[in-house]
Amino acid sequence: MKKNIAEGASPLRIIPLGGLDQIGMNITAFEYEDSIMILDCGLGFPGDDMYGVDLVIPDVTYLEERIDKIKGFVITHGHEDHIGALPYILKKINVPIYATRLTTAIIEHKLEEHCMLDTTVRKIINFGQTITLGDFHVEFIRTNHSIVDAAALAIYTPQGIIVHTGDFKVDYTPIYGDAIDLQRFGELGKKGVLALMCDSTNAERPGFTPSEKTVGTTLRTIFEEQKRKRLIIATFASNVDRVQQIINVAHDYGRKVAIEGRSMVSIIDIAIKLEKLNVPEDTIVDIDRLRDFPDDKQVIITTGSQGERLAALSRMANGTHKKIVINPKDAVVFSSHPIPGNEKAVTKIINEIFLRGADVIFQDTHVSGHACQEEIKLIYSLTRPKYAIPVHGEYKHLKAQAKIASTLGYDSEHIVIAHSGDVIEFDKENVSKSEQVQSGFIFVDGLGVGDVGNVVLRDRQRLADDGIMVLVMAMDAAERVVSGPEIVTRGFVYVKEADELLEDIHMIIDDTVVDYYERCQKDTKEHNKLKNSIKDAVGEYIWKKTKRRPMVLPVILEV
Amino acid sequence: MKKNIAEGASPLRIIPLGGLDQIGMNITAFEYEDSIMILDCGLGFPGDDMYGVDLVIPDVTYLEERIDKIKGFVITHGHEDHIGALPYILKKINVPIYATRLTTAIIEHKLEEHCMLDTTVRKIINFGQTITLGDFHVEFIRTNHSIVDAAALAIYTPQGIIVHTGDFKVDYTPIYGDAIDLQRFGELGKKGVLALMCDSTNAERPGFTPSEKTVGTTLRTIFEEQKRKRLIIATFASNVDRVQQIINVAHDYGRKVAIEGRSMVSIIDIAIKLEKLNVPEDTIVDIDRLRDFPDDKQVIITTGSQGERLAALSRMANGTHKKIVINPKDAVVFSSHPIPGNEKAVTKIINEIFLRGADVIFQDTHVSGHACQEEIKLIYSLTRPKYAIPVHGEYKHLKAQAKIASTLGYDSEHIVIAHSGDVIEFDKENVSKSEQVQSGFIFVDGLGVGDVGNVVLRDRQRLADDGIMVLVMAMDAAERVVSGPEIVTRGFVYVKEADELLEDIHMIIDDTVVDYYERCQKDTKEHNKLKNSIKDAVGEYIWKKTKRRPMVLPVILEV
Repeated sequence: MKKNIAEGASPLRIIPLGGLDQIGMNITAFEYEDSIMILDCGLGFPGDDMYGVDLVIPDVTYLEERIDKIKGFVITHGHEDHIGALPYILKKINVPIYATRLTTAIIEHKLEEHCMLDTTVRKIINFGQTITLGDFHVEFIRTNHSIVDAAALAIYTPQGIIVHTGDFKVDYTPIYGDAIDLQRFGELGKKGVLALMCDSTNAERPGFTPSEKTVGTTLRTIFEEQKRKRLIIATFASNVDRVQQIINVAHDYGRKVAIEGRSMVSIIDIAIKLEKLNVPEDTIVDIDRLRDFPDDKQVIITTGSQGERLAALSRMANGTHKKIVINPKDAVVFSSHPIPGNEKAVTKIINEIFLRGADVIFQDTHVSGHACQEEIKLIYSLTRPKYAIPVHGEYKHLKAQAKIASTLGYDSEHIVIAHSGDVIEFDKENVSKSEQVQSGFIFVDGLGVGDVGNVVLRDRQRLADDGIMVLVMAMDAAERVVSGPEIVTRGFVYVKEADELLEDIHMIIDDTVVDYYERCQKDTKEHNKLKNSIKDAVGEYIWKKTKRRPMVLPVILEV
Repeated sequence: MKKNIAEGASPLRIIPLGGLDQIGMNITAFEYEDSIMILDCGLGFPGDDMYGVDLVIPDVTYLEERIDKIKGFVITHGHEDHIGALPYILKKINVPIYATRLTTAIIEHKLEEHCMLDTTVRKIINFGQTITLGDFHVEFIRTNHSIVDAAALAIYTPQGIIVHTGDFKVDYTPIYGDAIDLQRFGELGKKGVLALMCDSTNAERPGFTPSEKTVGTTLRTIFEEQKRKRLIIATFASNVDRVQQIINVAHDYGRKVAIEGRSMVSIIDIAIKLEKLNVPEDTIVDIDRLRDFPDDKQVIITTGSQGERLAALSRMANGTHKKIVINPKDAVVFSSHPIPGNEKAVTKIINEIFLRGADVIFQDTHVSGHACQEEIKLIYSLTRPKYAIPVHGEYKHLKAQAKIASTLGYDSEHIVIAHSGDVIEFDKENVSKSEQVQSGFIFVDGLGVGDVGNVVLRDRQRLADDGIMVLVMAMDAAERVVSGPEIVTRGFVYVKEADELLEDIHMIIDDTVVDYYERCQKDTKEHNKLKNSIKDAVGEYIWKKTKRRPMVLPVILEV
């Protein structure tokens, strides 16, 4: 290794292609001469202004143009913001995927849904193992996170060692497997780390994130207090350790457990198969069999903790779930926090559950999977990197980690905050941001990938705010109106309320047409000028009368 | 008073007409025989699914039908969710408004904007004063809240005394005026209180809400630490006490203060005029004059703390403000918490400000204006009501207060949670929910009040998600298509991406028309059946090809 580092003649380029924003997809390219490796390949969740968009995936034009250099995807863990774009990006960049056991199994489940299992190479990597990807050697290091089998990476490059934490916390008493391999972080620090790319999600929070085990204690108290109730517990589908703890306590209290929600069922199946989840015999039963047991012997673990309207919990709360209806004999536990942006949706469902007469418990029932300030300082102190590159989070989170680094003695020249498309370039002496490459969002809407862009989104916003008014008429070859104008509105106002308005609009259109031809203006065959005149006149009138701006859409047929 | 209580022969009816939901308008009717008084008259802020709606106001049909009985509006304080619907409701129910001094001034400012000042009777009431409204006598009691001059009410009715806290907290060291009149609450308790209607907003939070004064201490630390920077401080326009504290600290540090944002400027003007705000000479300067002073002698107090896209702070952050652009020499303080639902918008603007190189301070810079659990217990213990009626909050908050009441010994028969339109009826012996009266939301959109309903909102949602496809053709008297079909889409996909799709749709329409007339179906003059057939055939095809459901709108002209 050391030899390589000394020899590094070309620059090492690190290129984040996800965003530092609220969309939150994680994908970073590492490039050295003819080798590129891609770290994670996540999707983003659309912002409030991305009307109708289902998913957001990264623009990887830069990588497509260098496809021959790409050696593989290295994936840190199995969350959607790290693996979700794989089915889309693999269609363009089909290279092997390297990941730990559970991560690989979750990716495989996803590929199967997209019928891509046969065409994709996967390699399962163990902690401590090092793989070679062209000029890079990548070592997988055990960490703790809100999903089992999460890895940090030591990336040995000709310019030095880059340590990437992935998403992590320090949990001295994890549920499955061992604590984060702090010793290895220390060893790497001794060798010399060029840069640390560390998770910033909780960098604003002082102290230490509590151990996952503390939730078990809370759960035990809840089971004790709610002895007579049926228990419905909502949590994140992929939080296998949380499910393990619920199952453990349920077993101790002689309760049977059913799993609800498609994503929850599939991840738990995978975890059981891989022995990442240890279920005492006869504890998990089918939801149909669960009803054979008395209320106080039942536990339902379900999806929907974020208030998603179509998830199992919402359907239980609004009475549309086929098998379970929440009732006063239930206690519903949210073993989760709302992800930023979901607060209102979560509160809404809590209100709905209270209205059904059930108890709702949503305080102190969750711990984060991300490191707080003291844990971040610990990783810096173990690895002692030359450069700090905060990653994972919005800009304010990266700034918060930068502040931590500066309290540890890093000056601004040794802290690098990179935006999507920035190229961080390390040569023998320096680090610099050398250029900006193409990057950005591709919107997935239904089956369409990339066919919804900003024009479509702006139109959707306009339609959402004030609706549309379609004005249709037919003109003959002599430019006389022979039919119409017919006025059709959607999302504007009740037509019965708008009778007078519509009459006026008819008059305005007639006047515009007359005025137009009186002035003998020439127009294209499509009547574009006339249509614009009508649009302006009608739009202005509606604004004056209603202070609204519906989209006005004139259509002129020729007969 | 006591005589009256004993004499109460008819039932007292209390009817909340706002909601217990996330929209949050406050308005409650008190009815006894021929007397009705209306407590507060607030507006609501539209939910995420209320596309394009500007405001929500209460449906007051029940009151309109009993207009002759109505004696007046009694208003507890000057926040929008308590006064905002007045200009709309007064148009139907023009009765006098009773409120404290600052509350009245804020209402008058609002009425002036609506040109309703001359037609509305206002009466300024002092703390301790009692007014008579038909069979009701209403006493105003001083409380503390995040706006000056907030009142609780003791409502003396023939069935007993109802104490309504308004929005309140217990602040032993308030900035303006005295602490809440706890002694009076105690005296009323001694007299005997029939029911306590107590603010539930913070009923989930243990402990005591800190004094407003604690924010002053934090502000002083920030001024000390940011000695070299221009300070921009965002807070709620109506929080006069907060502004007072900022001005005090600014004065001590020799800084000049400018006020930005229309609502902030007008409320501060009012507060200065009423001497509710005490400004040392030459401290407040015009924004244009502020620039004559060095950065470290400037403070800008601004609106926009909730991330509102059009407020002053947003414009300073995105570079569209005419006079102030945030830069690396600024420190921006959010002296506010995000109101639930605004978290993402607030974070977005924090990111934007960080990107401009400024510091952002948003932790420990705000205290709530609402009572926490220990304060709620205090008010219960002072008033010792026979019945508990939790008010103000979503259903989960009222349930949280109900839980507090139950720990204080109230059984479920003495705790009443009422929904909008419920009639809580007190007679000599009992309380009951006797009936449900009409209530609900009226949407205000532009100049329209009530002309946007659920059909329009559903259409807007559909348009927002998948856009619209308009299919236009002209048919002659012989039912032949003589022009079109022309296809126009908005908010669907880029047309260039959809060429093939559009070709197919042309064919589908042609086939549908042919098929339709081959089967010799009779249709109305408006071709409704044919239009439905086209809509179904095209809609189904688009769903199959794209998994999207744009609104399909066929228009057939007759020529």
